Formats: sequence, C-alpha cells, structure tokens
Amino acid sequence: MARTVDWDDGDGGAVTAIDQRALPAEYRVQRLASVDSLVAAIADLTIRGAPALGAAGALGVALAARRHPGDPDRVRSEAERVAAVRPTAVNLRRGVERALARLDEGADAVVAEACAVLDEDEATNRRLGRRAADVLTALGPDRPLRLLTHCNSGALATVTWGTGLGAVRELAERGRVAEVLACETRPLLQGARLTAWELREMGVAHRLLVDAAAASAMARGLVDAVVVGADRIAANGDAANKIGTYALACAAVRHGLPMVVVAPESTVDHATASGDDIVIEERDGDEVRAFAGVPTAPPGTAVYNPAFDVTPAELLAAVVTEEATFRAGAWEREAALERGLR
Amino acid sequence: MARTVDWDDGDGGAVTAIDQRALPAEYRVQRLASVDSLVAAIADLTIRGAPALGAAGALGVALAARRHPGDPDRVRSEAERVAAVRPTAVNLRRGVERALARLDEGADAVVAEACAVLDEDEATNRRLGRRAADVLTALGPDRPLRLLTHCNSGALATVTWGTGLGAVRELAERGRVAEVLACETRPLLQGARLTAWELREMGVAHRLLVDAAAASAMARGLVDAVVVGADRIAANGDAANKIGTYALACAAVRHGLPMVVVAPESTVDHATASGDDIVIEERDGDEVRAFAGVPTAPPGTAVYNPAFDVTPAELLAAVVTEEATFRAGAWEREAALERGLR
Repeated sequence: MARTVDWDDGDGGAVTAIDQRALPAEYRVQRLASVDSLVAAIADLTIRGAPALGAAGALGVALAARRHPGDPDRVRSEAERVAAVRPTAVNLRRGVERALARLDEGADAVVAEACAVLDEDEATNRRLGRRAADVLTALGPDRPLRLLTHCNSGALATVTWGTGLGAVRELAERGRVAEVLACETRPLLQGARLTAWELREMGVAHRLLVDAAAASAMARGLVDAVVVGADRIAANGDAANKIGTYALACAAVRHGLPMVVVAPESTVDHATASGDDIVIEERDGDEVRAFAGVPTAPPGTAVYNPAFDVTPAELLAAVVTEEATFRAGAWEREAALERGLR
Repeated sequence: MARTVDWDDGDGGAVTAIDQRALPAEYRVQRLASVDSLVAAIADLTIRGAPALGAAGALGVALAARRHPGDPDRVRSEAERVAAVRPTAVNLRRGVERALARLDEGADAVVAEACAVLDEDEATNRRLGRRAADVLTALGPDRPLRLLTHCNSGALATVTWGTGLGAVRELAERGRVAEVLACETRPLLQGARLTAWELREMGVAHRLLVDAAAASAMARGLVDAVVVGADRIAANGDAANKIGTYALACAAVRHGLPMVVVAPESTVDHATASGDDIVIEERDGDEVRAFAGVPTAPPGTAVYNPAFDVTPAELLAAVVTEEATFRAGAWEREAALERGLR
C-alpha cells in the first residue's frame, strides 16, 4: 500500500493520493498534477483524515510552486484556494502555511518542506504506535490481544501507518494481536469501508460489527481493550472523536476494559480546558436518512447527526501521544467499582 | 393502517401481513396462503417483532389446519416448521402451541383460537401501554417527556398498538410526549424504516439518529427516559432485546436516566433463570457487509452479527408487563452511584 498522499517529482511534479472513495471495492492511486484536481480530490473526500489533509495542504503549495515558479502571488492565491476547500479542517490550513513559509527560497524549498511534513507525520505515527502498543500490552492480559476499534484511525487517515490503528499495526508486528473487532461506524461507514480494508492488507484477523453490538461483544468476553484515535483532545484529557466513541467508553468502563486514545500531540488543544468547551459539528441529515444512496427512513424525517462525541478523561485508561501518556487516574477506580457492582 | 398480521377467512383462508421490508417506501399487505409462504415471510422479516411472531405462529397452525383438515400429523409437522424458523423468539413457539392445543376440535377451532390470540394481543398491548405510561410519568420529570427508543416495538411489532412504542402512543394521547429520538437500529434499520414511519403516522415529534449517537444525546441532556420492548425476559428480569439495547442501558445508567422495558407477560420466560441462559441468535454476515445490495466492506469480511443482546435487570428502572411491574431495586442504587461519580 502506497502512502495515502505523497509527492511524485517526475514530469514536473504531482501529488499522488489513494482514492478513498473507491475503497473497499477498488484500490487505485490518483495522480493529481494540477491544483484544480487536488482541490477537487479534497472536496470530494478522495483525500480525508486530519493528518492526511495537513500533508495534502503542504503538497498543494508544492504543486503550485512548481507550476508557477516565477509568480509568488499566483502561488499564494492557489495556496489559499487549497486551504479554503474544507474550512473546519485546521490541519489543512496549517499544512498550507508551513509550506508557504518557504516560498521565498524557491519551489524546491517548498517541495522539500512538503516532503518533510510527510516524513514527520510518518515518524510521529510510528513513535505513537510503539508507545501505545507498550501501554496496551501493559494494560491488557499477557497474551495476544482482542482489540475493538471504531471509525478509521489507520494509514488512510494519515500519511501512512496510522494512530489508533497504527498501534494495532505495531502490536501485530510484535505478534500480539489475536483479533480486531472493527465497528462499522455509521453514518459514513469508515470502519467497514476503510478499517476492514486496512486490516485485511495487514493480514490481521478481524471481524466487522454494527456499532450497537460492541457493548454486547464486551459482555460476552470478546474484547480485551478498546483503541481509537481522536479528532481533538482538551487540556484535561477529554477526547472528541467520531460519534459512538463515548458509547464504547460507557460500555468499556462497565466491563473494566481499558480504552486507549492514540493521537499526535498536534491533536491536543491546550487552549480548551475540557470537553464541555468543544463545539460538536452537526452534519447533514441525509447521511442518516439514506444508506449507500438508498433511502432508509420516510423522506424528510428530522435527524440528529453529530459528527463527534466527547469521552471524559475519567473513562479513559490512557491518552497516548508521541511524547506523553496521559492517565486521568479515575479510570482504575471506576473500572474496579463497576466490576464490584457486577 | 391494518393489523400487522391478521386472518382472512375467504378463499380457503390465508394470513395477511403488512410487508415490513417494503416500508417506509411502500405500504403493502401480503396475502400468505401457504405455510411455505408464511415460513418465508417470517424468515425474511416480512413479519417480525415478538408479539407479531406469536400471532403469526398461531395463524400458521390455522393455515396448516385448513390446508390439511384430515391429517393432524401433517398439521403438527407443518406447525413445527413454523415454530423453528426463529428459535430465539419464544412467542413464536407459544403461538404455535396454543393453536395446536385445539387441533383435536378441528380446523375451525384452531382458526378461532388463532383469532383469539390476535384479539388478546391488542387488548394486552393497550393495557401494557397504559401501565408503562404511568411508570414513565412517575419516573420522569413533570413535563412532556423526551423519550429515546430502539428498534421497533410499535404496532408493526405486534398485532397492533405496540409495546414500548405503545407506551409512547399512550403518552402521546395524554399529551405527554415532547419528542422521541429513534435509533436507526443497524443492521436491519427497523428504527429508521418502521419506528420513524409509525411516529409520523402518530403525529409525534421525532428525530432519527445512528445507534452510536444515543449515548451522546444522553450526555447532551436530550433524553429523559429510554423505552424499549423485549424479545425475551428471564425470571430475574434480565431482558433480551434487539442488539444495541444493552449499549443504551450502559449509557442510560451512567446518566441516571430510567430505562423501561415494556413487554407482554408472554415474553417472560420463567424457565430461564437469568440472561446468561438465553441463547443469542447470530444472523448472516451479509446484513452487515452490504446494504440494499451495495457492499459496504471488502468482500468476504468476517462479521460478528448477534441479533440480540441481554440487559441485566440491575440496569433497568422497570420491566412492565400487562400484569406486573418488575423493579430490580438495583437501578436506583446504580444510577445514584453513577451520578455521584460524575
């Protein structure tokens, strides 16, 4: 599997991207040789996932710099166009700005900076994965683990390797994964479409389940630990992640199962004191009213469709970044208490 | 809206059934004139829902008795075929056995018994609904309630009126419902397809959500109580219901929200001591791997697809039948404890 997004220096330079809309039916890599085509690929979710978007932003500036070597104003306006495709994706604009900062040094410097963004993302993820694998090994039983995960926090959400699923990848390389249960992750099915595909590529034993079956899997003793990524982490360790993560936490703590959040330091928002301050994006109701394009509910049915939920730090066994392991301390108490009650 | 299942005595007799797979796109009533077609309709979920299955079981024997009037052995083997289609559904076998008990009196007696099952189901549901509405009113705040429900426990799950959703219907007639949040209920989407359709028919304000968003809705203060049906209730009050019910219970108890199970006495299995003894049916993985013929996961992906889960009585504020209100007593303690922890 190629990097999710990458730079191809041949033929005047181009961005390459795994087409995530085509998965799991088809694996294909797109060659995006113009800013227009990159903008379209970001808009239509050919490229998605916060770290991957950051890399795509930097690569977009590299592309513009190669196309318009003597015209910095044009490069800047093209860069702004890339940054503006998905205004809520902070990483996208950050990636653009980082590459743009070297524009005065010429196109080669911009390309080098974009490639450095990619290399750093990979290095960060590999370090993350090792640290989180150590934490999961320490928290779980002393045998290959049965892990449950939600959404896609894999190579496809990053440049390569992954965060939550990167920890699974690391554990698999150590021979410490017995099975992964992958929640399908309604409404957009990133678990079914992307995580199941990645696990197959990895050669890791896995089963897919509906999100609502995860608590039952825990009750039936099929899970040793839960591992997920995060979209944003507050200063106190509260973690915003794909809708459904909090539901998993409620069940996991009840069964005394550790839930570990794996995310880069760039996800930690020190300016946000707690999860209460995180604004939750509500998405279009059509995502819920239809499934794979087929209507599932009466037309016009009102929908509650939050994209994320917030898991309080007290329900998490650990939040692992490439530099730190945050443990709220409350988890052991809660888990022990729950076990005592049952 | 017709009865969900009914008897049509014309033309040698037939079972009529609202085709629940066609909803919400189309409302149509099927005429099932052979045991084969009835067995197929139960297997493919044209008919579903515990009480409706009980009625269908009795009607299946009526159908067999009319088709083979001089051959009680044949009627018995046909009846067994009907009873065996869905082994977890205790009501199905009970309905079969009840009609079969009058086989010695001839086909007309069997048909009369089946019709009595239908009439009693309606009377039971209306009584259930009144009792559960009283319990929910007592447990909830003193204003119209925001209720969350899962799967379909409405008229379409019974002969008519409903159990869990029958309580909502009763509360709505009393002007005591502010909003219903209906979980879509993957994999077969009974919440999106059937409950949203019924709520619209009732004229009750409602919103649809993915199952994984229910815990988040509770955390955000959008829910006063959870109300569901049950497929089977053990002697200790543990309740088997559609997969995802247990996940809701884990979240509800965490937020001190009462969860009420509403089901007829016939759902209570006194021979089963606790939920640990309830065998959970696992269904075909294609329900999760694809939707409406569109694959959502890589072909051949292994699937964990339990049809039901078991909610321990200790997480339930009440189990309400037409005759009794079962309260484990542990719920208040747990809910208070959870509130104390938060």
